[in-house]
Amino acid sequence: MAHAVAVSGVGETEYSRSSGRSALMLQLEASLSAIEDAGLTPKDIDGIIPLSAGTSIAEDFIANFGIPDLRFSAIIPMGGASTVAALQCAAAAISFGICKHVLLPAGRNGYSGARMAARITDQPHRRLIAEFETPIGAITAAQLYAPMARRHMEMFGTTSRQFAEIAVATRAHALLNERAMMKKEITVEDHQSSRLIADPFRLLDCCLESDGGAAIVVSAADRAKDLRKHPILVTGIAEGHPDSPSTITQRTDITTLGVAKAAVRAFAMAGITHDEIDVAQIYDCFTYIVLCQLEDLGFCKKGEGGPFVESGAIRLGGKLPVNTHGGLLSQAHIGGMNHVIELVRQLRREAGAAQVKDAATGLVTGFGDLGDGAVAIMQRA
Amino acid sequence: MAHAVAVSGVGETEYSRSSGRSALMLQLEASLSAIEDAGLTPKDIDGIIPLSAGTSIAEDFIANFGIPDLRFSAIIPMGGASTVAALQCAAAAISFGICKHVLLPAGRNGYSGARMAARITDQPHRRLIAEFETPIGAITAAQLYAPMARRHMEMFGTTSRQFAEIAVATRAHALLNERAMMKKEITVEDHQSSRLIADPFRLLDCCLESDGGAAIVVSAADRAKDLRKHPILVTGIAEGHPDSPSTITQRTDITTLGVAKAAVRAFAMAGITHDEIDVAQIYDCFTYIVLCQLEDLGFCKKGEGGPFVESGAIRLGGKLPVNTHGGLLSQAHIGGMNHVIELVRQLRREAGAAQVKDAATGLVTGFGDLGDGAVAIMQRA
Repeated sequence: MAHAVAVSGVGETEYSRSSGRSALMLQLEASLSAIEDAGLTPKDIDGIIPLSAGTSIAEDFIANFGIPDLRFSAIIPMGGASTVAALQCAAAAISFGICKHVLLPAGRNGYSGARMAARITDQPHRRLIAEFETPIGAITAAQLYAPMARRHMEMFGTTSRQFAEIAVATRAHALLNERAMMKKEITVEDHQSSRLIADPFRLLDCCLESDGGAAIVVSAADRAKDLRKHPILVTGIAEGHPDSPSTITQRTDITTLGVAKAAVRAFAMAGITHDEIDVAQIYDCFTYIVLCQLEDLGFCKKGEGGPFVESGAIRLGGKLPVNTHGGLLSQAHIGGMNHVIELVRQLRREAGAAQVKDAATGLVTGFGDLGDGAVAIMQRA
Repeated sequence: MAHAVAVSGVGETEYSRSSGRSALMLQLEASLSAIEDAGLTPKDIDGIIPLSAGTSIAEDFIANFGIPDLRFSAIIPMGGASTVAALQCAAAAISFGICKHVLLPAGRNGYSGARMAARITDQPHRRLIAEFETPIGAITAAQLYAPMARRHMEMFGTTSRQFAEIAVATRAHALLNERAMMKKEITVEDHQSSRLIADPFRLLDCCLESDGGAAIVVSAADRAKDLRKHPILVTGIAEGHPDSPSTITQRTDITTLGVAKAAVRAFAMAGITHDEIDVAQIYDCFTYIVLCQLEDLGFCKKGEGGPFVESGAIRLGGKLPVNTHGGLLSQAHIGGMNHVIELVRQLRREAGAAQVKDAATGLVTGFGDLGDGAVAIMQRA
């Protein structure tokens, strides 16, 4: 049943620090681009899952595009895991027979407009954090995730230089991508001398905040095969939530994320092994979150993420190229939709200078503020 | 595929004007009641779709109930259509194989806390209205829907006394229901002499604002058959959105709601005719909205809703008993979740004094602020 769904179109605006237009405009532009990429028109869209922390709803797209017969709409409030979790929701809506083409629009003025840190209390998924972590001084994402990274260092001997390797590898990939915002090469020493933000996170451990829009169209596979581009099948998809209680400081195991549960199910659904993954786009709000997910996904054992990345495994040419577009760390922060788009481009063989040769199977993850995770496995049809 | 899903449990708190506890508490209480009604425990829940206009998220239930392995979460921002549309989303998640038991919790302090009129600008689905209708003085729901009702009167000769019949029939049903807030019989003359709120709506055309919680559990049908209560199959389910633009004054046809599109699909999915519907729970924020939906659902032709209700058809003992619990007009306003629960009770033959004899097939609708609609057809297994 999972093989009944494909990504048929992808679209992006430019990524910048000042878009000069509204978040909705960015979403509409990226959506039109994705719809055109699929060889469809807006009237073909019959499902919409907006990804904007509640600022856009399906009716915004009906009103602006003149969509005549929308049959499904939802919002997935899972922070950075929302994008991939929305892909699961779209797959369910298509498989149940509700929709043929579901639009997933993302976009925000994350730098010039509502910056993440400023919005900390206006999202429902922040409320649990606000009850437990905010009173002890943790307000920004860097402060919230720092204890997870520090715990990992204490338990497993993980080092800041290992975090640095993730930043350096990701920046090297960004330099191959004309859509990436960061244009300057960095070294481990640059990372080590960048200023401390929230111990153990330094500036170069932290992702960007960006303006931009990004969108995909998810289609029934039997429709996608007749569309403009080579369809990319979604063969494994799952979301996972950490055990109760969900706040960071109150969780029994803060070095394991919801993605661990999702990964087991996604791999089982796809019926493939880890060796078959040619490329992975891993949600990278902070370097450590990539390291932790590599373990949770099963690419190495818990505690061995440091040596795994230090081996060069996640670089282009390595065992498991990760974030070949430059990720949230060096391309732009569009809620992880840019990760989904990069995976599709890799499997279409449209990834340009960062193309992983003969990429046929890949993986993309999302990570949300409360430890939520989602994993999608995609395969070239 | 639609027959693969059933409602396995229902639960409610008391309905009041002052609950004395938080909206989340009400949702948790109603949820526990629904889970127990199904013969399950919270640990069995693997999907959650909170229905509270974004104030609660899945993590609230994970944290409070200790749910170990949640696999699906979403929010449906369709105003009063959200409840039935969420049922469609739950059905998709179950049919796709993600979940076995999805919890749909609703609840708010709609009278003592955040009253509808006061929240008009804090919900994304109100934004389009705010751009077009608010500047001309329409702020509350009564003001927003009044032009629709007036238009219907002008086009089809519908009368205020016909609206009154809906209020009177619904109140008569409420008097049979110990959970209903309104305890006093009313007549058409009472309606006609009640004060004007927004022409043509009088006080008795308007629904209640209430405190309370209500929840259901939706299960895979093959699981539901082994649970405590007789499973009620969801055999037809769909949502529909009006054509663009979605605002009330800018729509080409303001006397047809999204429910018209949903109804065609829901009946086709269930494979039944209108004559087979034994009982209907129709979203009744205002009397007129019931009349309009009776037409949109196909129980009578467009423009004939007035004579249809005047014939006594919607009373217990009539051709199509409607809102046998007392509805939003006379039981309580719990976003329409109480309508879903009443349909399940009717089909289980647990509706007490308001029981429709041998009820085997029924229908429930939702109506959202932007004209969105959703329809579910349920059948006794």
